[in-house]
Amino acid sequence: MTQPDGDTLTMEHQHLVLDDGLVLECGVTLAPVQIAYRTYGTLSPTRDNVVLICHALTGDQYVAETHPLTGKPGWWSRLVGPGRPVDTDRYYVVCMNVLGGCMGTTGPSTPRPASGQASPEPWGTDFPPITIADMVHAQARALDAMGIGRLFAVIGGSMGGMLVLQWAASYPERVFAALPIATSPFHSAQNIAFNEVSRQAIFADPDWNGGRYWARGAIPARGLAVARMMAHITYLSEDALTRKFGRRVRQDPVGPAAGPLAPAPLFGEMFEVESYLRHQGSSFVRRFDANSYLTITRAMDYFDLGAEHDGDLAPVFAGTPTRFCVVSFSSDWLFPTSQARFLARALNSAAANVSFVEIDSDKGHDAFLLDEPDLDRTVRGFLSGAAEHAGLI
Amino acid sequence: MTQPDGDTLTMEHQHLVLDDGLVLECGVTLAPVQIAYRTYGTLSPTRDNVVLICHALTGDQYVAETHPLTGKPGWWSRLVGPGRPVDTDRYYVVCMNVLGGCMGTTGPSTPRPASGQASPEPWGTDFPPITIADMVHAQARALDAMGIGRLFAVIGGSMGGMLVLQWAASYPERVFAALPIATSPFHSAQNIAFNEVSRQAIFADPDWNGGRYWARGAIPARGLAVARMMAHITYLSEDALTRKFGRRVRQDPVGPAAGPLAPAPLFGEMFEVESYLRHQGSSFVRRFDANSYLTITRAMDYFDLGAEHDGDLAPVFAGTPTRFCVVSFSSDWLFPTSQARFLARALNSAAANVSFVEIDSDKGHDAFLLDEPDLDRTVRGFLSGAAEHAGLI
Repeated sequence: MTQPDGDTLTMEHQHLVLDDGLVLECGVTLAPVQIAYRTYGTLSPTRDNVVLICHALTGDQYVAETHPLTGKPGWWSRLVGPGRPVDTDRYYVVCMNVLGGCMGTTGPSTPRPASGQASPEPWGTDFPPITIADMVHAQARALDAMGIGRLFAVIGGSMGGMLVLQWAASYPERVFAALPIATSPFHSAQNIAFNEVSRQAIFADPDWNGGRYWARGAIPARGLAVARMMAHITYLSEDALTRKFGRRVRQDPVGPAAGPLAPAPLFGEMFEVESYLRHQGSSFVRRFDANSYLTITRAMDYFDLGAEHDGDLAPVFAGTPTRFCVVSFSSDWLFPTSQARFLARALNSAAANVSFVEIDSDKGHDAFLLDEPDLDRTVRGFLSGAAEHAGLI
Repeated sequence: MTQPDGDTLTMEHQHLVLDDGLVLECGVTLAPVQIAYRTYGTLSPTRDNVVLICHALTGDQYVAETHPLTGKPGWWSRLVGPGRPVDTDRYYVVCMNVLGGCMGTTGPSTPRPASGQASPEPWGTDFPPITIADMVHAQARALDAMGIGRLFAVIGGSMGGMLVLQWAASYPERVFAALPIATSPFHSAQNIAFNEVSRQAIFADPDWNGGRYWARGAIPARGLAVARMMAHITYLSEDALTRKFGRRVRQDPVGPAAGPLAPAPLFGEMFEVESYLRHQGSSFVRRFDANSYLTITRAMDYFDLGAEHDGDLAPVFAGTPTRFCVVSFSSDWLFPTSQARFLARALNSAAANVSFVEIDSDKGHDAFLLDEPDLDRTVRGFLSGAAEHAGLI
C-alpha cells in the first residue's frame, strides 16, 4: 500500500474557472469546470500569434518549464522556447491540462460539488464519461475566457493529435494551422485492447477499492504501475528496445528500488529492459491519478472522427479553411503511418491544404517526445510557412 | 478471490517418472521428475516413425484429442491425426507437458518432495529456475525411458519452436528433421518486456501471496487474467483485431460473465474487442497455474541459443545432420519473420539442409494454431520429403 503524495492533490496550479461549466456529450452538465494552464511568450496586440499545444494521455500543461512535481524539464522543452521550432519569441504558447486530468483541471480527483458535505469526496468513477470533443470544447471555453478567439496553430502528438483534429473539425474558423503528430482520426481495435488491459490492471488492484481509494488512504499503485509498464512497451519500437537494452542483464542484481512492484529479482537475473520498465511503472504512480487514467483512456477509445459518416472523414473536413501538416514516424506501431496516411488522404479528398511527412525513426511512438531533428525541422518549417500566409511576418 | 478448480490439481494424466531426476542448468538436481505425455498412432517395429510435438507457453500434451479440462478439441487437431499433415496413420506422435508445466509434469504446483511432511506443500516460487534446455533434456530422458532413441521429426510453434531448435542443437544425432514454426533462436527485448509485465500483473495480485496462494485457498485469478489479456493482444495482428472486432460495440451491454475481472461496463459501452479479451483472460485462469506461468515465461526469456558465441548460431549447428524447415508468418510481430530469416541464414552458414517459408497471413502469431492451409501444405510436404529421404516410405 502506497500513501498518496500530498503534493499531487493539494498543489496549486495556475487556472481559470468556467462557472457555467460545460454540457458534455453524454448529456451531463459539469459545473463549475476548472482549467489549469500555462502560457509562454507574449500575446501580440492583435492576438494573432497564439499556438495551442495539446498534451498526450499522461502529459500536462508544463510543456516548456521545469515540472513542479518531478523536477524534470517540460515534456516538449526541446521543441518549445525562445528560438526553438515553436518559438516563444514569436508565438504566444498556451497549454492546458485536459478535462479529466489530474494537474489542476476538473477530473475524477476533483471534489464533487454540491454534495452538501463540509469536505466533499472526489468524483472518482462517478465522474461522467468524457470525450475528446468534450476536452476540446472545454479548451475553447477557456480560450474565450482568456479573450482568445482564433488560434494561429494547434499542435499535439498522440492523444494531443486527436485534440488537434477535433479542434479543426469542431472549430474550423478558429484554427489557421493544424499539426497532428503520431496520431489517428480513430482509435484502433488494438489500441482499445491495450487500454482495456491497462484498465483491468487498475481494477484488479484491491487498493483501487471500486474507485474510492481515498477512503483507504491509499492509491492503486501496483495496478497503475503495471498499466504504465505495458503502455510503455507500446510507446517504443522493437528496434529501440533492442538497441537500448538487447538481452543485457543488470550488473546490480538487486535492481532499482521497486516502488509498488514486486521485489526484484524473484526469478534469477534481471534483464536491463525489465529494470527500465519497473522504473517507468514505479515513478509514474507518484504523479498520476488512477481514475484520471481510466477516464482519459476511455475518451481515447471513443474517438472516431468519421463515426457519423461510416468512417469517411471527407465530410468532416469539407471546405475546411485550416492548413494541415500530418506527421508520422516510420517505427510507430501504436499510431502507424497507415493511419496518418488515411487521414492525409481524407484531407486531400476534402480539398484541404495538407502536407504529409513520414519521419524515418527507429524510436517508435515516443519519437514525438524525443530528439528527432527531422521533427524539429518539420515543425519550424510548417509554422514559418503558415506564419507567412497568415501575415504574421 | 476465486477458488482453485479441484480438477486441475487432482486429475490424473498419463505419465512416467524419472526416479533419478535431472541435473538442471542452474546446478540443482530435481528428483524425481514426472513427465505427463500423450501418444497418437502406432510405433513402427523399427521405432523409426516418431514425431515429437512441442507445445507453446500455455499449451499441453493434449495435442490431438478432446482436452480433459476444457472439453475443447486438441490444440493442433487440425494438423495432427489420421490423414492429416502429421499423419497418425503413418507417424507415432508423442507430445509431453513441459518441465515446469501444470498438466501432470513436475512443476511449481508439484508437491515438494522430502519435506518430511505428511502432505507436503507445492514447490511454488522455490521451484528452481529452469531453461528451455532443461525442458529438452527432460524430454530426452523420458524418450529414453520409453525406448525411443532417434526422432524422425520434432515440430513446434512459438516456445515449442524454441524446444525444436534446442533439440537440434543438443541432440543433433537424434533429430532427423526439425520444423520450428513462428519462433526465434533468442527471446527479444520486446518479448522479455511483455513477459515481465505479465509477471508483474501476477505479483501485484494479493491472492498470489508471495507465490503461496494455496495457503489462502485462492488463486491469483485477477493478475493471471490481466497477464493473459495482454499476452493475447501480442498473439494477434492489428489487421486481425480490426477485421474481427473493429470498433464495434457489444449489443448486450452487460457483457459476458466477467470471472475474476471487474464488472463490465464501468465506463460506458463495451467494445467487442474488450469483451473478447475479458473472455480470454477469465477462461484461462481455470486451466493454468500462475507459478507455472512465471516459471515458463522466465525460461523463454533466458533462451538465447547463440549466447556462448556472441549470438552467432553457425557454431551451434555446424555439421548438423538434421534437415530444417523454418516457418514464419508475415503478420507475426511477436516472433517476426526477421528472426526466422536470421535463423535460416545461420543454418545456411552452418551448411545445414534448410528451407525457409514465410506464410502470408494476417492472423499474427496465432496463425500457427489457426486454419492456415499454407501451413498444412508446408508441414505435409516437408514431412513427406523427409520421410522419403529417411527411407520411411
